[in-house]
Amino acid sequence: MAMQPVDSYLNEIIAAITPLALTDVPLIEADGTVLAADTTAQWPLPGFDNSAMDGYAVVAADVASASADNPVTLPVAAEVAAGDTTARTLTAGRCIKIMTGALLPDGADAVIPVEWTDDGRESVVITQPASAGHAIRRAGDDAKPGDLLLPAGTRLGPAQIGVLAAAGHGVLRVRRRPRVTVISTGNELAEPGSPLVPGRIWDSNSYMLASAARQAGCETTRYPTQRDEPDAVLAAIEHAAATSDILVTSGGVSMGGEHDVVKAALTKLGTVSFRKVAMQPGMPQGFGLIGANATPIFTLPGNPVSAFVSFILFVAPAARVLQGLSAQQDARRQARLAGPASSPDGKRSFLRGILDRESGSVTPLTGQNSHQIASLARANALIVIPEPVTSLPAGELVEVLELP
Amino acid sequence: MAMQPVDSYLNEIIAAITPLALTDVPLIEADGTVLAADTTAQWPLPGFDNSAMDGYAVVAADVASASADNPVTLPVAAEVAAGDTTARTLTAGRCIKIMTGALLPDGADAVIPVEWTDDGRESVVITQPASAGHAIRRAGDDAKPGDLLLPAGTRLGPAQIGVLAAAGHGVLRVRRRPRVTVISTGNELAEPGSPLVPGRIWDSNSYMLASAARQAGCETTRYPTQRDEPDAVLAAIEHAAATSDILVTSGGVSMGGEHDVVKAALTKLGTVSFRKVAMQPGMPQGFGLIGANATPIFTLPGNPVSAFVSFILFVAPAARVLQGLSAQQDARRQARLAGPASSPDGKRSFLRGILDRESGSVTPLTGQNSHQIASLARANALIVIPEPVTSLPAGELVEVLELP
Repeated sequence: MAMQPVDSYLNEIIAAITPLALTDVPLIEADGTVLAADTTAQWPLPGFDNSAMDGYAVVAADVASASADNPVTLPVAAEVAAGDTTARTLTAGRCIKIMTGALLPDGADAVIPVEWTDDGRESVVITQPASAGHAIRRAGDDAKPGDLLLPAGTRLGPAQIGVLAAAGHGVLRVRRRPRVTVISTGNELAEPGSPLVPGRIWDSNSYMLASAARQAGCETTRYPTQRDEPDAVLAAIEHAAATSDILVTSGGVSMGGEHDVVKAALTKLGTVSFRKVAMQPGMPQGFGLIGANATPIFTLPGNPVSAFVSFILFVAPAARVLQGLSAQQDARRQARLAGPASSPDGKRSFLRGILDRESGSVTPLTGQNSHQIASLARANALIVIPEPVTSLPAGELVEVLELP
Repeated sequence: MAMQPVDSYLNEIIAAITPLALTDVPLIEADGTVLAADTTAQWPLPGFDNSAMDGYAVVAADVASASADNPVTLPVAAEVAAGDTTARTLTAGRCIKIMTGALLPDGADAVIPVEWTDDGRESVVITQPASAGHAIRRAGDDAKPGDLLLPAGTRLGPAQIGVLAAAGHGVLRVRRRPRVTVISTGNELAEPGSPLVPGRIWDSNSYMLASAARQAGCETTRYPTQRDEPDAVLAAIEHAAATSDILVTSGGVSMGGEHDVVKAALTKLGTVSFRKVAMQPGMPQGFGLIGANATPIFTLPGNPVSAFVSFILFVAPAARVLQGLSAQQDARRQARLAGPASSPDGKRSFLRGILDRESGSVTPLTGQNSHQIASLARANALIVIPEPVTSLPAGELVEVLELP
C-alpha cells in the first residue's frame, strides 16, 4: 500500500470538516471562542467626552497666564465624579472639580491635573496653563459607530473580550470551543498508579491527549479506557460521538489484523478510512465521520509519541477549522541544527528537539523512537525533515514547529 | 511623590509572594500544575522487552539467509498480543507471531515485520533477514529506574503528563493553578448589554482580567462589580480573599481622594501600599497582602489598557512565583520598529504593536492612550521604550513582549 503524503492527508481532513454551528454566548462564557461575524461599534467609544485625569475642568483661556509665580485662582462651582450622570455647564471664570472618566461639563475645553493645583475645594490655585483639549478624551476617539472592532474569525482572548465589553456587547455570536473526547484502547493498558505485570503498560495516551486538546483550546472529556473488544469499542465510540465535536482514539490501528480493534470496529461502518501516512513517527492513521452528527474521528496510533505528533499535525488543525479559523497556526520557524539529524527516505520526520529561541539553534534529542516519551517531555519543538532527505549535518537550516 | 521604577516594584512584589503549599493531585487533575519535586522513573520504561512492530519474533540467525528468491519458512509456534502476560519461550527453528507492544518471548532476538512475510498462521514465509535486535524495544531504553523524568518546577502540559503516566505516577505532588478573583469597582460601571446614559460606561476590566488570568494558567472567579462604597468594597475584598490565591481589583486608585474607593478602603488596613510606578500606561499601582492567609492583592488602575499591561507585568509573574516558577516567562525578543515611537521622559512605555514574527519588525498602532482598548485588541505585542528615551525613529531595534 502506497503511503499518503502528510500534506495530502491533512488537506483531506480539512476538506471533510464542517465548522461548528454559530451560537450566542454571554460575554462571561466567550473566553476562547471565535467571533462568527465582523463586530462593529454601535455607539461611540468612549460614549461621551470625559476627563483623562483627576483635576479641574476649565476654559483653557481662563488659565492661559497661570504660572508658579503668577497662579490663577478660580472658584470651584461643582464637583463631578465618575459615574455621575448629571449634565453640568461650566461658565467662564469658574471651574468644576472632575475625576478621571467623569462626564466633561459643557463649556469646559481643558482639564487641569490636580498635580498642577493646590487641590482646593471652594476655590483652586492653578500654577500651569493647558492648551484646549488637554486631558480630555473625546467621545469616539477609540472607535466611532460602525467602526470594525474585530473581524469574524478572531479568537477571543483578554483584550478582545475587553474591547467587546467596553463597546457594550453582552452577548456574542461565536463558534464555541470544540468538545473533544479521548479514548485509549488496548488490553495492555493499566491505570497509572495501579500495580503492573510484564506485558502490561500504564495508559499515558488518554491523559496526554486530553491535556493536548485542552491546550489547543478545546473542552476535553477522557473516556474510560477500552479493552480490545470490537463491539464494546464501537459502542463507546458511538456513545461518545453523540456529545463530541471531535473523537480521538489511540491504539488498535496497526497491522495486527483482528488485534487492531479500532480498525476492526470502524471498518465495517464504511465512513472511516485507514491508511499509512508518509511520516515518522505516526505512520498508521485513520480518519472519518461517524454517527448522526457526522462527528470527525481520528484514530491515532498507540505509540505515545506517534499519538502526540499526530494530534499536533492533524487534530489541532481540525479543531481550528471547527471554530472557523484557518487550519495552520503560526508556530513554524527556521532554526539551525546544533547536531546531525537523520530520517527514513520517503517519510517526513518530526524529531524532538530543544529550540533556543534567542540563538535560533535547535538540538535534536536522543531517544527518537516512537515509544520513547521521556525525550518528548523535554522537547519544546519538533524538527521537520523533508521526505527526500535522509540526513542533515549540524549547521543546516531546518523548519521547526514550536510546541505550545 | 517620586515614581518607583518598574523593576524595583516588580522585585518588591516577587519578594513578598510565598509559593503555594504543595498538594497531591491525581493525574487527571494535574494539567497546568507545576511539579514540586524532581520526579524519577521507579521502574524501567518500557518495563519489559517488547516488539516495536506487528510481525514474527525469531532467532535472527534462523532467517539470515532469507530473500525474496530464497525465502525462509518457519512454523508459527504461538501468538502473543499486546497485553498478553503469559511468559513464552521461543526455540530455534520456530517463530512466534507477535503484535506491537507485546512481551518478547525468551530466546527471540529479532522481530520480522509482517510486511516482510506472507502473514502466515501455521507457518510463515519470510523474505528478508534481520539483524539481532531488529524491531525490539529493550526494557529501560526510554528511562532506567532512578533516571530523572522531570525536574521540580516543570509546568505539566501534555507531554509531561504523558511521561509521568507512562512511568506509572498516578498521583503527583504539585503546586496547583492559582485561584484568581477579579473585582471591578466604580459607580460608572454598567453590565455590557444593559442600557447606558452619558456618564456611565460598560465594565470591561473584570471580563478582560478574568480571561487574562485564565490565559496565565490560573483558575478564575469574576466577582460582582462593586459600587464606590468603601465598606462594601472592603467586605467584598475580604470575602474574596478567603478563597483566592491572588486578588485583583481595578479602578479606585487614582488621585481623586475619597472617590478612590479601593485606596480609601485598603489604606486603613495598613498592609497594602499605593505608589506611582514610572510606566505608561499604568502609573497608579497598589500591592499588599490581606486577610488571614496574607493573600496578595493587586489594585490595578481602572483604564482598561493600564489594567491589562499591569496584569502582564506584575500579576502574571506573581502567579508564576506562586506555582514555584521563575517570575519571567520567555516572551521577550528584539524587533525592528516599522514606524516612529515616542514615550514620556522618565517612564518606561509599553506601546501596543503588531509584531511580524517572520521579518522581526514591529509596527506601533495608532490610539495609544490608556483608555483606547480598540488598539489593544488588535495588538500581539508590547513595545518597550526605556525610561530615558523619549522618541525612536523607524528602524531602531527595540525590546518587545509578545502577548500570549
